[in-house]
Amino acid sequence: MTVAVCPGSYDPVTLGHLDVVRRGARLFDEVVLAVATNSTKQPLLPLADRVALAEAAVADIPGVRVAVVPGLLVDFCRDVGADVLLKGLRNGADYDGELPMALMNRHLSGVETVFLPADRSVVHIASSLVKDVARHGGRVDDLVPPGVVEVLMARLHPQPTEEAR
Amino acid sequence: MTVAVCPGSYDPVTLGHLDVVRRGARLFDEVVLAVATNSTKQPLLPLADRVALAEAAVADIPGVRVAVVPGLLVDFCRDVGADVLLKGLRNGADYDGELPMALMNRHLSGVETVFLPADRSVVHIASSLVKDVARHGGRVDDLVPPGVVEVLMARLHPQPTEEAR
Amino acid sequence: MTVAVCPGSYDPVTLGHLDVVRRGARLFDEVVLAVATNSTKQPLLPLADRVALAEAAVADIPGVRVAVVPGLLVDFCRDVGADVLLKGLRNGADYDGELPMALMNRHLSGVETVFLPADRSVVHIASSLVKDVARHGGRVDDLVPPGVVEVLMARLHPQPTEEAR
Amino acid sequence: MTVAVCPGSYDPVTLGHLDVVRRGARLFDEVVLAVATNSTKQPLLPLADRVALAEAAVADIPGVRVAVVPGLLVDFCRDVGADVLLKGLRNGADYDGELPMALMNRHLSGVETVFLPADRSVVHIASSLVKDVARHGGRVDDLVPPGVVEVLMARLHPQPTEEAR
Amino acid sequence: MTVAVCPGSYDPVTLGHLDVVRRGARLFDEVVLAVATNSTKQPLLPLADRVALAEAAVADIPGVRVAVVPGLLVDFCRDVGADVLLKGLRNGADYDGELPMALMNRHLSGVETVFLPADRSVVHIASSLVKDVARHGGRVDDLVPPGVVEVLMARLHPQPTEEAR
Amino acid sequence: MTVAVCPGSYDPVTLGHLDVVRRGARLFDEVVLAVATNSTKQPLLPLADRVALAEAAVADIPGVRVAVVPGLLVDFCRDVGADVLLKGLRNGADYDGELPMALMNRHLSGVETVFLPADRSVVHIASSLVKDVARHGGRVDDLVPPGVVEVLMARLHPQPTEEAR
Repeated sequence: MTVAVCPGSYDPVTLGHLDVVRRGARLFDEVVLAVATNSTKQPLLPLADRVALAEAAVADIPGVRVAVVPGLLVDFCRDVGADVLLKGLRNGADYDGELPMALMNRHLSGVETVFLPADRSVVHIASSLVKDVARHGGRVDDLVPPGVVEVLMARLHPQPTEEAR
Repeated sequence: MTVAVCPGSYDPVTLGHLDVVRRGARLFDEVVLAVATNSTKQPLLPLADRVALAEAAVADIPGVRVAVVPGLLVDFCRDVGADVLLKGLRNGADYDGELPMALMNRHLSGVETVFLPADRSVVHIASSLVKDVARHGGRVDDLVPPGVVEVLMARLHPQPTEEAR
Repeated sequence: MTVAVCPGSYDPVTLGHLDVVRRGARLFDEVVLAVATNSTKQPLLPLADRVALAEAAVADIPGVRVAVVPGLLVDFCRDVGADVLLKGLRNGADYDGELPMALMNRHLSGVETVFLPADRSVVHIASSLVKDVARHGGRVDDLVPPGVVEVLMARLHPQPTEEAR
Repeated sequence: MTVAVCPGSYDPVTLGHLDVVRRGARLFDEVVLAVATNSTKQPLLPLADRVALAEAAVADIPGVRVAVVPGLLVDFCRDVGADVLLKGLRNGADYDGELPMALMNRHLSGVETVFLPADRSVVHIASSLVKDVARHGGRVDDLVPPGVVEVLMARLHPQPTEEAR
Repeated sequence: MTVAVCPGSYDPVTLGHLDVVRRGARLFDEVVLAVATNSTKQPLLPLADRVALAEAAVADIPGVRVAVVPGLLVDFCRDVGADVLLKGLRNGADYDGELPMALMNRHLSGVETVFLPADRSVVHIASSLVKDVARHGGRVDDLVPPGVVEVLMARLHPQPTEEAR
Repeated sequence: MTVAVCPGSYDPVTLGHLDVVRRGARLFDEVVLAVATNSTKQPLLPLADRVALAEAAVADIPGVRVAVVPGLLVDFCRDVGADVLLKGLRNGADYDGELPMALMNRHLSGVETVFLPADRSVVHIASSLVKDVARHGGRVDDLVPPGVVEVLMARLHPQPTEEAR
């Protein structure tokens, strides 16, 4: 049985993430959407929200579950019995950026990383862009799964409303 | 009539920006140098300075004007009647970095993004490098339009002068 | 008035080419689909077929016409009064491959090259792939405009049929 | 059960190919090393040699077998019940070159392509380089599996021996 | 006599840095490992530690010495009589990222930058990854020269221990 | 003493090649412009012409000489006592394309490859583009050293004229 881990900060989960997870679930026996608690970048959403939104998003995908990565990613992989990290990829610069991490993780524990090209329908979606768009008042409801918009907006525009940036 | 928007933080405007704007003005009916009020990266120069320096720099280029982007870039494009975003480009990694934004903007509003290769004479110029050089006491007067050096230096080395780093 | 030239061998014209031409026609006053008579690569289809298929494909797009490039591309641009070459682009490696030609053409005559990202719906389409698929018996009718399949098949599988692949 | 296909011309099979196949065999239930009969590039070795060398090379790897792709790759995948194409990857430009094919194959039949970074110990090995080195008299015995050198040399330097290029 | 400068923040020095410095010392008469006092990114280790660790690491490599870059890199090169900057490189995106700096430095003072591909045995090592791994409790002793681990750990996990990140 | 080899087919030598050779001659004690007798690609100019034009081009550059590579490049490096291969580089895709060769040559004999970014003034020049332009009647006299145009034209347009492509 092959378990694949899809790591990320999921800040928040997007339709791009779901594309990778859903397709991964057809290739591997189990997929773990692994929410990283990255200590250097400050996420917009608290961990609990990121996990809850991800759980709601994958609830209907058989063979997928959500977990939190408490420390080192390769330790997490060992703990959940994962043989492989699965990452979506947009382009060559993405790959060049990911490669040192993939080589490092393989060096540390032998865990493999495989890359899956993003589906053409979601290749424009990245969490950072989604947040930028939402921050400036753009519509993101067709970029994220149901439920995310509300949480994101509550965080970005907390008050009786405007903010006009 | 085709209006092109050249977005950026222009922190500060450089000869690299002017190259793109000037050549764009020959391809499109109007070019709007659009100063972004990016809410996540903290610019070195205040918005008023960035706008004033850009305005001085393009004053002699027919068909070019400066404006501030108050919110979402695609909303700004709609407001100024722009059909296209115009971006200078140095290399393939630049392109890979810009592509998701271009696809996102097209998804949001249909606005196109076209890329113009940087002129060979300015391909080494980027605002971040200009600031790095100036911060450490290097000469940048052949990298930026007239007037920028003074504003930049006043900001980087505010005191009765030297600083010798 | 800005005239844009879309050069290529169009061997054969694909929906990818049409995407660029159609969008270019909204940005520029006139678009010339320019069929190159490249002297080093041997095309599959004769020039007359490539031109006829391209003409049929753009017949319904206002502001677009087809022409043959008899010699140097920059001479052709001058002859048709074009200020700009327009090229579709998929990714960073594409850009790195195109850039020397863009710089060379600008060096030779001052003509600019602007790059337009391929639409997500056609980013998988390239003439060479279309020919590969068709050569091995795959369906390409949703990759090329109407009429191309017949000409392509007649060329690739000329006989009463089989062909020992 | 997930079957993965590793397509290539294997002209000849190298230690780089074996790295991908061997690691793929740990991730998927079965791996098919699929020797393409590419109709446009002329291989150095005849199909029978390429197949025989590949078969010898994978004989000791459980879950791996060799097959010939008679026509379209996606048809072959369907015939062997494969859900996924597996490709080794060196760098971002490789990825950018492979992506259109991956998208095309997914478009044609839904088959996925996943990419596995080449192991650092074989990242310098490519069939074309191996042939170049061998052609000029360099040693390639640590680049290919046992048995390949003899076949390659017999092909490149057929005569009573020298050739000294 | 050709002096080469290897600039970096060395936060901390890694086996990847040593690979470049060691190989550079065979190509040039003298190599200066130049510790930058970068004013925008906040290093993890104080300058004194970064210098001391680098000095210990290169103590046994003939022709290599350590120095601090007090201001502009090109001024430093002039002061130490260096003709060339030497940088290790992993991939194309790395190169695209480094190129503007190389061109800028050449523009400022004429100093050249040459790039040396990272050895395959260290291509997965970068200071930032080393810090990430160490921060989360992973082993990094085979990624850095002797002595670095202790200093790094003392900084990352200062207390009587726990911290559980 | 460090000897650097600049390999290429020099078909024909261009100002881009001379830029690399000239700058390399300031970094290394001797530079050998090494004309490859590549057995797979068919050059336009015969070896004798390629060598003669290169020799004329470097005649005035101290420390540079021309030689022919009779076989394997690493054997040639050993024979001329070269420690390093020197290659000009335009962009990241170039680098990704060159890297496997650099790693292979280092694997075969330990010879290093260092990369020098092309000067901005010649970044548009490549032998293949020069031939394309010349073939179609464009001017290339500012792309190649004196004497090359005549030889190139005699080869491309041998007759009392016609050909007019």
